[in-house]
Amino acid sequence: MPEEFALAVDVGGTRLRAALVDREGCVTHRQSLATPADEGAEAVVAAIARACRAVLSESAVAGDLKIGLCAPGPLDAKRGIALATPTIRGFTGFPLRQAVKDAVGLDVAIENDGPCAALGEWTCGAGRGTSDFVYVTISTGIGGGIVSGGRLLRGRLGLAGHIGHIPIKPDGGAICFCGHPGCWEAEASGSALQRKARSAGFSSLENALERASRDEASAVAFAKAAADDIALGLVAVIHVLNPQRVVIGGGVANAFDVLGPLIRPRVDARLMPPFRGVEIERSMLGDDTGLIGAAQLVLRPVQD
Amino acid sequence: MPEEFALAVDVGGTRLRAALVDREGCVTHRQSLATPADEGAEAVVAAIARACRAVLSESAVAGDLKIGLCAPGPLDAKRGIALATPTIRGFTGFPLRQAVKDAVGLDVAIENDGPCAALGEWTCGAGRGTSDFVYVTISTGIGGGIVSGGRLLRGRLGLAGHIGHIPIKPDGGAICFCGHPGCWEAEASGSALQRKARSAGFSSLENALERASRDEASAVAFAKAAADDIALGLVAVIHVLNPQRVVIGGGVANAFDVLGPLIRPRVDARLMPPFRGVEIERSMLGDDTGLIGAAQLVLRPVQD
Repeated sequence: MPEEFALAVDVGGTRLRAALVDREGCVTHRQSLATPADEGAEAVVAAIARACRAVLSESAVAGDLKIGLCAPGPLDAKRGIALATPTIRGFTGFPLRQAVKDAVGLDVAIENDGPCAALGEWTCGAGRGTSDFVYVTISTGIGGGIVSGGRLLRGRLGLAGHIGHIPIKPDGGAICFCGHPGCWEAEASGSALQRKARSAGFSSLENALERASRDEASAVAFAKAAADDIALGLVAVIHVLNPQRVVIGGGVANAFDVLGPLIRPRVDARLMPPFRGVEIERSMLGDDTGLIGAAQLVLRPVQD
Repeated sequence: MPEEFALAVDVGGTRLRAALVDREGCVTHRQSLATPADEGAEAVVAAIARACRAVLSESAVAGDLKIGLCAPGPLDAKRGIALATPTIRGFTGFPLRQAVKDAVGLDVAIENDGPCAALGEWTCGAGRGTSDFVYVTISTGIGGGIVSGGRLLRGRLGLAGHIGHIPIKPDGGAICFCGHPGCWEAEASGSALQRKARSAGFSSLENALERASRDEASAVAFAKAAADDIALGLVAVIHVLNPQRVVIGGGVANAFDVLGPLIRPRVDARLMPPFRGVEIERSMLGDDTGLIGAAQLVLRPVQD
């Protein structure tokens, strides 16, 4: 009989969250604390353990609880190693799975945050019922995860879904944190759009999109240009994978009422005809996407 | 017990080939004829049937032979329908699988040429032994097929692998046959490189690459620029899929001695560090890639 609950942990560069999560994605006994990202891997593991123990002591769940944990990649999920997470000091060649197992005393599965979020939306959110589905998170960067033929794609080291580094404007595009010009995330992430909004004279991205929702001409023009940049990477992903549905999460999804109707026709216009009509929807799980996906790592057998 | 042979058919825009092929990729009793691509779907099916009957009468194979057929996409492989093949008149919403079955009297499986070629290289060629592998054909256009986690990816309609339409230079790039600027295939296909070679003053792409192999400075500069354009799409595909190996086929693979050593460092330079070291190799099956893959459609159970 499968476990009813998992102890889910979502390690972000800023916040670290833990909770009990069931197969249907119900989240209880939440704990959240600041990620000591500058203090090194041992401090982060200690914080993870503290959050986990708080969940365990409050919930008093009996039985064989397992930990499902997601963190910013690149992680080698199969071997349980953080390879080179840029936002957390010491997550370089660090045996994260074993360290958390030792600190908490429970079995651990880890996964890159993009595929893990895809797993959450696929099993409990806006990807439900599909076999071919791509989750795209547009926030500080752009990341994602892929479900194809009813399976979560991992690739050789579990790094599949690093879609933010598709080069869409290699000649003269903005410089990405990876050092190269014109990556999709350097053009269309929340941070990139924030920068573009300010240089277009808006006080912030949120301000620009809010004014676009009130049909201010210059703000609408800005929103259309943002939708153009978002669409280019989606077009790449859709031609490679032929998904039924794309779900957009991350901070930019908060403006989906404005951006969604601008993105859809731009994507369709650049797709070859048989690819058109891909469903482009907003995340249903919001900030809990990663936490819910992390739980499913241990609650559902994922076919490899 | 599985069939020992399949009747494989590779329908190209110019030539149509049929043969007996076994599980190890051994090709016998070849037939080849011109594809009557301008005469409509019925004429093409009649030509397919003629080639199949010639193979059958020469080989005198007994038993339950099945037909595996690949054709230029987009095909809906699951439903057996040619959706909108641009190079063959009448292959628009055409029930290809049923038409060939009716004409030859044998069961038929069909597949898009890119995934089918990937299946061929994966099972019998340069992709052997990998679980995460991408086949890229660079000829008139750019197409491909994807193996991830030991399975051939298909996507919702079997259209996964249309990697030639990744936008790599959407601002001011060459216009693709699909109508949009800066698709990868508009910049880096054999046809695109042929055009660029001529406008750089070479008599042909082959001439430019042959002179590059003799270290002529202007030809080497041309070959490096070609490798830059090829590398951009590979970088996109590798960040999305995290493959162990990429295999390059199609006409451009004939110049792999010159291009391969230029492509590899350019790809690595733009990949995030954990992705580096992807093996980039030349197709082993050459012109038989599709034919051998088509046979495997019916000889090997492909996991969906």
